[in-house]
Amino acid sequence: MSSTPNSRTRTTESSESMDAPRADDGDRAVEADEVEGLRQGLEDERQRNLRLLADFDNFRRRVGREKEAARGDARREALLPLLAVLDTLERALAAGSRDTDFYEGVAATRRLFESALREAGAQPLEAVGQPFDPNLHEAVGAEPSDEVEPGTVVREVRRGWRLPDGLLRPAQVVVATGEEPARPWR
Amino acid sequence: MSSTPNSRTRTTESSESMDAPRADDGDRAVEADEVEGLRQGLEDERQRNLRLLADFDNFRRRVGREKEAARGDARREALLPLLAVLDTLERALAAGSRDTDFYEGVAATRRLFESALREAGAQPLEAVGQPFDPNLHEAVGAEPSDEVEPGTVVREVRRGWRLPDGLLRPAQVVVATGEEPARPWR
Repeated sequence: MSSTPNSRTRTTESSESMDAPRADDGDRAVEADEVEGLRQGLEDERQRNLRLLADFDNFRRRVGREKEAARGDARREALLPLLAVLDTLERALAAGSRDTDFYEGVAATRRLFESALREAGAQPLEAVGQPFDPNLHEAVGAEPSDEVEPGTVVREVRRGWRLPDGLLRPAQVVVATGEEPARPWR
Repeated sequence: MSSTPNSRTRTTESSESMDAPRADDGDRAVEADEVEGLRQGLEDERQRNLRLLADFDNFRRRVGREKEAARGDARREALLPLLAVLDTLERALAAGSRDTDFYEGVAATRRLFESALREAGAQPLEAVGQPFDPNLHEAVGAEPSDEVEPGTVVREVRRGWRLPDGLLRPAQVVVATGEEPARPWR
């Protein structure tokens, strides 16, 4: 809408001093059109500016979140394969050794491993004794128990780990059934 | 500047058919001022829009790089403390053990550890036999050698690691001096 009045007026202006006087009413109408067009154009540009600023602002906010998510993903990807290494080391230690010195050296390494994971932001989950939580635990078995409520984690098969921004990997757990051996699980 | 002419013109327009005719020259001057003001305002807004779009575009580009850098930093921070754990495990293995089964289990863990680090994007540096490079190596000693050129890495005290986007940690190395024991290093 705004381009036609604009171009018409530009012509009028540039030839103002050279042209013979025109019918006044016609000039007035052209100028009113032009003013209206310019005013509309200005309003459009201002609205566009406001939308751009709002888009920019939203983008900036989203980007902040995305950067945090990228950090989290990278940390998760780096740490996840290393948890399996710690599992293996723990299994080796659980078997024990008759070489005490060597065993002690490896046990110290295991402690250092856990510290390094904590330093990287990972925390082991405490699962045993907790009610089974499908968000943190993966049930790999069930056992009758007369000591804890049914649905309580009685044993951990694989340790779970979490990061500040969410779960790193779930704990694999064995869950208590009632006192009677629960047939459906067998 | 543009608001005063605006409001005056709105009055002129809306009352066009009702008002008595005014002094033509005065009106024309006011309208020319207003048109000029609107045109200038429109141009300013358009320039502002263009600048905003350019800023937005630059920001978008920068953000892509920053996200990559955030990923790299997070990976680096997660992996760096774990390299010290592998060092400790390697030192334990270097001492050897008379418990072959346990030793083999731990040796398998060490191989798994290295695989996990590689899976996370880390690669060990090959330093021995390479010319000393201050970007990759940290000299922790010097030894006379008649087998390699002076300035060649003869021994690695601590393994170096790199990531796809740069060094993770430098190798600590011992560098060859000439055949004669080099007095300044002693």
